[in-house]
Amino acid sequence: MAGSVFGNIFKVTTWGESHGKALGVVIDGCPAGLALSEEDIIPYMQRRRPGQSDFSTKRNESDTPEILSGVFEGKTTGTPISIIIKNSDQHSGDYSAIASYYRPGHADFTFDEKFGFRDPRGGGRSSGRETAARVAAGAVAAKFLSELSIKCTAYTLSIGDIKAEKTDFSEITQNALYMPDNEAAAKAGEFITKAKENGDSVGGVIECRIDGVPAGLGEPVFDKMSASLAHAVMSIGAVKGFEIGEGFNAARLSGHENNDAFIIKDGSVSKETNHSGGILGGISDGSQILFRCAVKPTPSISMTQKTVTKDGKETDINITGRHDPVIVPRAACVVECMADLVIADALLMNMSSRMDKVISFYTDR
Amino acid sequence: MAGSVFGNIFKVTTWGESHGKALGVVIDGCPAGLALSEEDIIPYMQRRRPGQSDFSTKRNESDTPEILSGVFEGKTTGTPISIIIKNSDQHSGDYSAIASYYRPGHADFTFDEKFGFRDPRGGGRSSGRETAARVAAGAVAAKFLSELSIKCTAYTLSIGDIKAEKTDFSEITQNALYMPDNEAAAKAGEFITKAKENGDSVGGVIECRIDGVPAGLGEPVFDKMSASLAHAVMSIGAVKGFEIGEGFNAARLSGHENNDAFIIKDGSVSKETNHSGGILGGISDGSQILFRCAVKPTPSISMTQKTVTKDGKETDINITGRHDPVIVPRAACVVECMADLVIADALLMNMSSRMDKVISFYTDR
Amino acid sequence: MAGSVFGNIFKVTTWGESHGKALGVVIDGCPAGLALSEEDIIPYMQRRRPGQSDFSTKRNESDTPEILSGVFEGKTTGTPISIIIKNSDQHSGDYSAIASYYRPGHADFTFDEKFGFRDPRGGGRSSGRETAARVAAGAVAAKFLSELSIKCTAYTLSIGDIKAEKTDFSEITQNALYMPDNEAAAKAGEFITKAKENGDSVGGVIECRIDGVPAGLGEPVFDKMSASLAHAVMSIGAVKGFEIGEGFNAARLSGHENNDAFIIKDGSVSKETNHSGGILGGISDGSQILFRCAVKPTPSISMTQKTVTKDGKETDINITGRHDPVIVPRAACVVECMADLVIADALLMNMSSRMDKVISFYTDR
Amino acid sequence: MAGSVFGNIFKVTTWGESHGKALGVVIDGCPAGLALSEEDIIPYMQRRRPGQSDFSTKRNESDTPEILSGVFEGKTTGTPISIIIKNSDQHSGDYSAIASYYRPGHADFTFDEKFGFRDPRGGGRSSGRETAARVAAGAVAAKFLSELSIKCTAYTLSIGDIKAEKTDFSEITQNALYMPDNEAAAKAGEFITKAKENGDSVGGVIECRIDGVPAGLGEPVFDKMSASLAHAVMSIGAVKGFEIGEGFNAARLSGHENNDAFIIKDGSVSKETNHSGGILGGISDGSQILFRCAVKPTPSISMTQKTVTKDGKETDINITGRHDPVIVPRAACVVECMADLVIADALLMNMSSRMDKVISFYTDR
Repeated sequence: MAGSVFGNIFKVTTWGESHGKALGVVIDGCPAGLALSEEDIIPYMQRRRPGQSDFSTKRNESDTPEILSGVFEGKTTGTPISIIIKNSDQHSGDYSAIASYYRPGHADFTFDEKFGFRDPRGGGRSSGRETAARVAAGAVAAKFLSELSIKCTAYTLSIGDIKAEKTDFSEITQNALYMPDNEAAAKAGEFITKAKENGDSVGGVIECRIDGVPAGLGEPVFDKMSASLAHAVMSIGAVKGFEIGEGFNAARLSGHENNDAFIIKDGSVSKETNHSGGILGGISDGSQILFRCAVKPTPSISMTQKTVTKDGKETDINITGRHDPVIVPRAACVVECMADLVIADALLMNMSSRMDKVISFYTDR
Repeated sequence: MAGSVFGNIFKVTTWGESHGKALGVVIDGCPAGLALSEEDIIPYMQRRRPGQSDFSTKRNESDTPEILSGVFEGKTTGTPISIIIKNSDQHSGDYSAIASYYRPGHADFTFDEKFGFRDPRGGGRSSGRETAARVAAGAVAAKFLSELSIKCTAYTLSIGDIKAEKTDFSEITQNALYMPDNEAAAKAGEFITKAKENGDSVGGVIECRIDGVPAGLGEPVFDKMSASLAHAVMSIGAVKGFEIGEGFNAARLSGHENNDAFIIKDGSVSKETNHSGGILGGISDGSQILFRCAVKPTPSISMTQKTVTKDGKETDINITGRHDPVIVPRAACVVECMADLVIADALLMNMSSRMDKVISFYTDR
Repeated sequence: MAGSVFGNIFKVTTWGESHGKALGVVIDGCPAGLALSEEDIIPYMQRRRPGQSDFSTKRNESDTPEILSGVFEGKTTGTPISIIIKNSDQHSGDYSAIASYYRPGHADFTFDEKFGFRDPRGGGRSSGRETAARVAAGAVAAKFLSELSIKCTAYTLSIGDIKAEKTDFSEITQNALYMPDNEAAAKAGEFITKAKENGDSVGGVIECRIDGVPAGLGEPVFDKMSASLAHAVMSIGAVKGFEIGEGFNAARLSGHENNDAFIIKDGSVSKETNHSGGILGGISDGSQILFRCAVKPTPSISMTQKTVTKDGKETDINITGRHDPVIVPRAACVVECMADLVIADALLMNMSSRMDKVISFYTDR
Repeated sequence: MAGSVFGNIFKVTTWGESHGKALGVVIDGCPAGLALSEEDIIPYMQRRRPGQSDFSTKRNESDTPEILSGVFEGKTTGTPISIIIKNSDQHSGDYSAIASYYRPGHADFTFDEKFGFRDPRGGGRSSGRETAARVAAGAVAAKFLSELSIKCTAYTLSIGDIKAEKTDFSEITQNALYMPDNEAAAKAGEFITKAKENGDSVGGVIECRIDGVPAGLGEPVFDKMSASLAHAVMSIGAVKGFEIGEGFNAARLSGHENNDAFIIKDGSVSKETNHSGGILGGISDGSQILFRCAVKPTPSISMTQKTVTKDGKETDINITGRHDPVIVPRAACVVECMADLVIADALLMNMSSRMDKVISFYTDR
């Protein structure tokens, strides 16, 4: 209950620090009989992995996931799936100095306040490296969802003020910034390069679309799907804002502009527009789920910064070491994986919502 | 686990529908010895209560909370506090027609998809009336927090495009819109009146400030305080977006602009600025916590709307009955109460974070 | 999280004290579409109700349950079912004296140690009256299970050393002690009467059989069905022991005596014997589930007892007031209801165990 | 939520199968600042380890635990502690035959029913080997408790009908059966040897005493300490019964025999006797906690047994391979570790029970 557990039925527990021996995740509650191997996880690890472009840290981690349990002869057994990712390139010498002061924008001070001390090597548990375990779990959830033809796709919507002008899924993997618009990506690349040259960093917005979600998922009241997605995404270190459908823009619309008219399409209930972002009253309405989140600029910058030491003296610091001038592209993969986890859990939770379906589940066997 | 339970230690369960006999909440995990009576809850119920201005529904509910358990001789006993609020003005006749079609922007369709049918009276469980129980719980949490000098204050930041230009807490209760700026409130009032005359509705943004939170609250990884606040606030029916500190604006700032320099102030670690909104790495940093959320325009509008009937036919509807042209001012109270619940729970969760404190807790008795 | 919540998906929260205004329960997670009314609950309340024989307290409570939410037009809606039971015969005057000392065998001392003070009226939250709310919840679970032809039956197996020699379900309701053996009940009645005349009390053993449970329920490792049943039953105030199948006797058997041979019966896998009590590896095996629990003698006796006062002085006391010389027969109903809750929850939990069933659940709609 | 997670605040998640690559546990919620290394865990692993006497399987596992996260410079950091135990002696060839039939007394059939198939190598997840991870977690909990001078001690009370006649803690480790009575252990040894020669197995009873628990732990109603202990202990594979204090014997006592008189001893409230087993109303009363559990005879026996094949044919089988003729001595360590986990969690849960203590916790810093 110290916050490293997520989900109700599809429940994941992550562990590990930036510069420890390894990090990993245990998934309890994945249904039995899902075909699964490391091959399903590796592509996700690759997307999140550092060192792939000029815009990400040069830390060299192979990030090879190893499944230690819960899979037999290529299928999940219904018991916990333990996945481990060994840390290879730890370089903990780089970080020895930072133990003595509090880096602005980082969790150094708050960890000390909460726990009395901290593992200072690379940010310890508060490092972005923690998300590697989330991605391994999300890859399993994504495999599960693919069996039901559900697909989450997250990408960089904007970097600073430079926004993708189109949403061409095929272009997402054609540029280092995971933008669905190569042209915008090129401009954003220049913008990042300039910030990097100044020893500064930039932020951006990630958008995620979820296709194939049946109507009826999410629980009324506290565990609305929108609330669960917000919880999941806001739990990623650098995320400072979350919105669904029209989001903050809805506050400026009138009711008749924001409401989505129901229509009949191909014989089924559908909506003329999708201002709601696929969720009504916290429950999926069958249309595409669409949300965005704001990622702050990387707090580790090489410009001189003012801060205080652990023993209470003001000082100036220059953070050296390997840092991303922007984490938005790598975070997109994490956002997508968190969405995968939420949808997988909601699917399993929803199975007990109707008496008629419970009865047919147990009598049609 | 159908989503009506919130919190880990300070755990609340709400129940009740818009037009049922009553609604209420059970709070399990409130520490023993807190002075508590209905008088602590009533002011909160009054703030949320309908029928208080031209901008809220004319439904007449006294919303008198009654404590049924968990309090003895004016103090909480450590056992569940059950609070009931009876529905007096049910008028369920008004709603008989809406059972046959799906109101745009409402949960009618999604409830039918999830549960196979729904209680159509006033939106049933998906009605905003459900939040009355949250407010009763939040009032108890607020009383608890007041013992530790912690105070949440939520207010209307903007209505449509009209934004408060100042944050004068004393003005919040001087206008019907709970804006901390009477002048902006006057303009917003005209804007709402116009929308109402058109049979339309408007939305807005709520801001919440939390003072007195000690550093160290919130859990790393999935249960970051920012994530718990997002979950709590996004679980309110009409909320479509959430941001903390700079929020979405952080995506446009550079690292050196967004980082808060640590300084020494009055002998303690403090921050020169508060772009982080009081939370670093998911843990409170001792400065003011500040977040905002976007509230969509009320979906119930009297303008003619296109929709479909339960049996799959397209139709035009005019929703009659008592509806708020704007729910932002009433929702501000709900947002504040959800924040109270999150902070109360985080305070109790945090007590087990350090071994030295656990030992002194049990040995200094 | 202060322990008044039980269950994972079929989740119940009880509240209320012996001499408060009312007590009740909120059930969150009951599937939608179950026919339910107070008529389904009343018979259970009657079985548990005091004042029905010479062997139970004369406290006069009608124990009429009222459903306040979650049911519309005779069917559950999938939203929380709130049930309230008003306390009518509170007689709190009877209990004023006991606030000053600690009754042996009761929770007076431990509540004071935990919470700093207590509601002394009738034992407050630690009163057996708390179980009225469990019974209301269990009645709903039983109604749910009846739709799947699952039935829990609990009865008095023994009182002191007097044991039922047969298990004739039809006789259970033919005697005041709920024994499946009228003859044994007659002897036990004399035994209780004698204890009562001495101002003393007696205990006994309750047995519960559960028919119709499909194989496959219960989760491996920590949430084995046997563990969940033990948790549920041991949480009833006076229960001091729990055993399943052969139970403690299994410790005296050899492997070949205790193992149940698998056989084919009517074309299906069955077992020749049922030493396991219907559970293997924590998972139901399709045969009858059978467990027993030990109920201690009522701690409230009118014989003079030695104890200490709240301010630390030794004293002699005579507890007056209305007390049961034996609570076993009334507790049988509570045990049965707790079993109902466990099975209902296990049924819903189990729906997500297999990928093929998850897929057909979502694709056969 | 598939049952591999245990505890509320001190929360453990175990993973791993008998013949997988490894097994392990993640502990989330252990307070920061506890001195911890593998050296604290190894002695517990040794106690549980197979191959140590004639009465346990010859499987040769070093069972060396490795801490992968959550500890920095010899102290816990407050973040998840991941412990891995590699499987070295897997011999999975031994088990290939058993995939085709259902072993009596094992979970083969029920796993197939629940999950559709199973990992047949050594029982997979339902193997007793799963408890190695529990022991690693329990060792950490025990280290935590030792800081508060709390100590759990479990031992073999009886094997078959041979019972320890005394409870001399010093003798527990002087015999291979972990009995606190060397003489009884010698007799029990002969009894086991005889059963083994017959290709049979035996069971027994484990007793556990917990010293140093302060009054006030455990939660009223569903999470009584007795209920949590029962849940924990009944979740161990072979355990079929649980009792606390007088347990099943309480059912045969009268109220005045079973009640414990409160007395003043050394100026504090104490009890003259301890029939309650240290728990009143589900809450610890400050005296020694004492419980017992029944362990069934090992189901794997080499005698010929009747069973059915996976494809529904009756057959006779002879289970070969390495099996314990009795698991009681090794299970004692597991029981003790489960008790450690329950007490550790209850200690942390209890910290939020009183307002005055919450206030002083936050204001005395």
